[in-house]
Amino acid sequence: MKKNADLIPQWLETAPQKDSFRSILKWGDKQAFKNPSKGFLKVIKQALNLTDTDFITMDKTGNQAVKESPLTLSRANLAELEKIVGKENLSIATYDRLKYTKGKAMEDIMRLRQGQIKDICDVVVHPRHKQDVVSIVRLCHGQKIPVHVYGGGSSVTFGLDCPRGGVTLVLSTHMNKLICFNETNQTITVEPGMTGPVYEEMLNYAPQKLSAKKAYTGGHFPQSFEFSSVGGWVVTLGSGQASSLYGDAADLVISQEYITPKGSFKTIEYPATATGPKLNDIMKGSEGCFGVLVSVTMKVFEYLPDNNRQFTFMFPSFESAVAAGRQISQGRFGMPAILRISDAEETDVAMQMYGLEGGVIDKFMGFKGMKKGSRCLMMGQAEGERSFVDTVLRQVKKKCRENQGFYLTGYPMRKWYKGRFSDPYMRDALNDYGILIDTLESSVTWENLHALHKTVRKVVKANPHTICMTHASHFYAQGTNLYFIFITKMPALAEFRTYQQSIIDSIEAAGGSLSHHHGVGRMMAPWMERHLGGEQMAVLRAIKTHLDPNGIMNPGGLGL
Amino acid sequence: MKKNADLIPQWLETAPQKDSFRSILKWGDKQAFKNPSKGFLKVIKQALNLTDTDFITMDKTGNQAVKESPLTLSRANLAELEKIVGKENLSIATYDRLKYTKGKAMEDIMRLRQGQIKDICDVVVHPRHKQDVVSIVRLCHGQKIPVHVYGGGSSVTFGLDCPRGGVTLVLSTHMNKLICFNETNQTITVEPGMTGPVYEEMLNYAPQKLSAKKAYTGGHFPQSFEFSSVGGWVVTLGSGQASSLYGDAADLVISQEYITPKGSFKTIEYPATATGPKLNDIMKGSEGCFGVLVSVTMKVFEYLPDNNRQFTFMFPSFESAVAAGRQISQGRFGMPAILRISDAEETDVAMQMYGLEGGVIDKFMGFKGMKKGSRCLMMGQAEGERSFVDTVLRQVKKKCRENQGFYLTGYPMRKWYKGRFSDPYMRDALNDYGILIDTLESSVTWENLHALHKTVRKVVKANPHTICMTHASHFYAQGTNLYFIFITKMPALAEFRTYQQSIIDSIEAAGGSLSHHHGVGRMMAPWMERHLGGEQMAVLRAIKTHLDPNGIMNPGGLGL
Repeated sequence: MKKNADLIPQWLETAPQKDSFRSILKWGDKQAFKNPSKGFLKVIKQALNLTDTDFITMDKTGNQAVKESPLTLSRANLAELEKIVGKENLSIATYDRLKYTKGKAMEDIMRLRQGQIKDICDVVVHPRHKQDVVSIVRLCHGQKIPVHVYGGGSSVTFGLDCPRGGVTLVLSTHMNKLICFNETNQTITVEPGMTGPVYEEMLNYAPQKLSAKKAYTGGHFPQSFEFSSVGGWVVTLGSGQASSLYGDAADLVISQEYITPKGSFKTIEYPATATGPKLNDIMKGSEGCFGVLVSVTMKVFEYLPDNNRQFTFMFPSFESAVAAGRQISQGRFGMPAILRISDAEETDVAMQMYGLEGGVIDKFMGFKGMKKGSRCLMMGQAEGERSFVDTVLRQVKKKCRENQGFYLTGYPMRKWYKGRFSDPYMRDALNDYGILIDTLESSVTWENLHALHKTVRKVVKANPHTICMTHASHFYAQGTNLYFIFITKMPALAEFRTYQQSIIDSIEAAGGSLSHHHGVGRMMAPWMERHLGGEQMAVLRAIKTHLDPNGIMNPGGLGL
Repeated sequence: MKKNADLIPQWLETAPQKDSFRSILKWGDKQAFKNPSKGFLKVIKQALNLTDTDFITMDKTGNQAVKESPLTLSRANLAELEKIVGKENLSIATYDRLKYTKGKAMEDIMRLRQGQIKDICDVVVHPRHKQDVVSIVRLCHGQKIPVHVYGGGSSVTFGLDCPRGGVTLVLSTHMNKLICFNETNQTITVEPGMTGPVYEEMLNYAPQKLSAKKAYTGGHFPQSFEFSSVGGWVVTLGSGQASSLYGDAADLVISQEYITPKGSFKTIEYPATATGPKLNDIMKGSEGCFGVLVSVTMKVFEYLPDNNRQFTFMFPSFESAVAAGRQISQGRFGMPAILRISDAEETDVAMQMYGLEGGVIDKFMGFKGMKKGSRCLMMGQAEGERSFVDTVLRQVKKKCRENQGFYLTGYPMRKWYKGRFSDPYMRDALNDYGILIDTLESSVTWENLHALHKTVRKVVKANPHTICMTHASHFYAQGTNLYFIFITKMPALAEFRTYQQSIIDSIEAAGGSLSHHHGVGRMMAPWMERHLGGEQMAVLRAIKTHLDPNGIMNPGGLGL
């Protein structure tokens, strides 16, 4: 018999059954798989106190077919909708209604694996263009039918749930087109359903695809990049892996056009304006609760990938790594595009995942006084005009050295960069054996960072046998974000919910933002009133009531 | 008899009479004066078709005393207000009521010179602290008394007018204090009435004044700097001369606290957050129409003045200068803090003002094909960490050379920098001889810049004998601003208003923003509905109605 360490679980590497729950819950490409590395699996086994026997029998895989479920929308309303978009752009099949109303939160996945059908819409509609949206919103406003919007489906905050049924508009089917590209202004206007890769490729190949003089980048790369939509970035206040230079999604938006029950409007395209509170700001992050985004104009940047320079450093402690990160962010020499700091636990896992533990680097680190359990990894990439990149890299190195950082070349960063969008695939493999991976994230000022980190870790670790990895990955002069990944075995949904809520509670109580870039959805909604205070929530409700007097737009979203 | 060119008008260089209209209208320091240079006066005489006789008799100087004017607020209400702030912090003297309700718009000045008392408040109140503001807003909400806020008094958009009388709160008297400084987060929290110089000096001398490790800068220097308030920057969406690097006022705000008729709230301090539409954004630019700003937390930056590097270039045309400005802004090498491009007319005036016309530089320029009437000046200053500054300067020079720019050293820029806050003093001197100087400004995308410039110039020049100088001074990757200065002789107020309105009309019709950084006030208010559209105005009105149901906060401001 093989030794435990060598046993490799039978990972499920076949495409999900057609029309199954699994085909809905599975991350990304139906034919793509990524299993935990031997090193990562070893970490998990150790930390979660598992043995090989835990990897013999699979948990519910969700490979059973979705059964039909009744709907409550009237035949007359369905007929009206069909009249607007045509028979081919409407579906009342339960499979579709489930598919387009479930995101990628751990709880979504757990329910789907168990074959649960909950909070789905009555009908899925694929509008062809803005005019369809106008007609649908008018109809639904008159008939008081809830309206929800599906972009890329990567919500991890129950943003797509339809607790009152109604219509889900899928914008990625048809409303995914280029509207216009303006090379002089360096802006692009697209329909909101365009996905990240289509958007970025069009810009990268702008000379060929847009008859442009130069190539461009959108500078926005959330981990969900491949399955996210441009509209989704904007309405959920997303943030990409290169945000430290390019800005968050909110910073990239020049203009937006919305269809609301009250009427339609498009904000004017200006680089800046002083004409009172800006609708372009007010609508960002509205998560479909005020109206439907039908076109968006974004900043683009000259694409200069040949200039990219990677760096990696090891620090003796989280404190020293964070100090370097703060000094870089406040250094007035320009920011690297990507900057990431892993805490000690994430660093240890990374060392094992990449097979570095026990090797030469590990030994050398030990010699340098950078010990397992306290050492922390920083990595990043500088982008831009060549001499700017050189300046940033030189100054980053200086700040790191000043904080006892040890340069590990750009190699680990390049390794991470290559696989940066494929990690979510691993979750399905682990889930198959009942191991949960979930994430919660927050933004925080420098001063409050370590207190938040300690408090949240304590709550996560209160559950025995849990991995809690944390990183900061979006940097600002005033602070950063903390992204908590927790891995544990917890088959009961009720238990998981209680656990997750205790973590959210701890984030809120310790002064972190309820979300840095995942948005609010229905997951954070119960905390919103306490978090913002009644007065601020009342202002959001007043805007909601004005634009959506019948309360049909994504009811329950944002806690409104 | 002396030749015309040598005649120097008898400029009025005595402090205004006590309690006179002039003491209200005069810019800045009562004892400070700046008269047009010989060169500038020559330009004005030529362009406006004036002779020495136009500089013999002064127009109305406004040196007469302000006479008492009745007020309508009830004795009971006055007594209530007095009970809140104390007798010493309240005034019903007409002089005070006029002083704190007039800004620095050309029309304000004209009316004051004519001794007009119009749209003033009933009572001036100097709240001591936030709690006073709470009590006053509560009283005024109950009694339906209008409430206005005075910060630095530098509004050029009738932002301080009180068409329905009521109370004016002067925040610069007492509510001008430091609340806290956080060096780790690089933020400072102040009361809104703190003036620019106090704020900046405190930061520049942070080691001495704030027990900080380093010195800081706020990075915000509007032309009104010396007489502007931090709160004013935020609620009017101001922009400083160094905005191309540091950002506009709106970009500097981390958190705000407001007292509204509906209640009070303070937005939470985060570097970023994804918890729905942000009150911190919604309140920016609200110009006192939603509530009273009582504290604001701003970003600060390490102060590195020794690294500053100046540059000046001459270009053969406005087109080539703007092309260089655009390429700098889109260059991905970091931005200079200050960047300014003067159009041909402003360049010619500058050459004469600085006595350069006809000199060696002028002749050399001619030799280079840079002729009067078409050549354009660009100047700027790079700031930040030393190697960043070097990179920016090197790349700026490269972009300028590529667009036929000729390097004129940093000298003219240093000259401008030295006098940058004193130019407004010249207006009073010229006004004394009936010569108007007014400014209107707009933001615009690169693509629309030249069309806007030509259209507005045509309308300005439709009035014969008018100087129209234009510059771009706030740069973004997507566009810039155009700042129009027009100088003419037009004694009749009604004629001036018609003229000014025709210029605003032309800005709006040509697709410029109604304002880049002057704000809306009551001057732009009549255009707001057309500019933003009914749907967007209705959203602003809905927020107003929610926070201020009795419509007491700065009535008529923003066009709400």
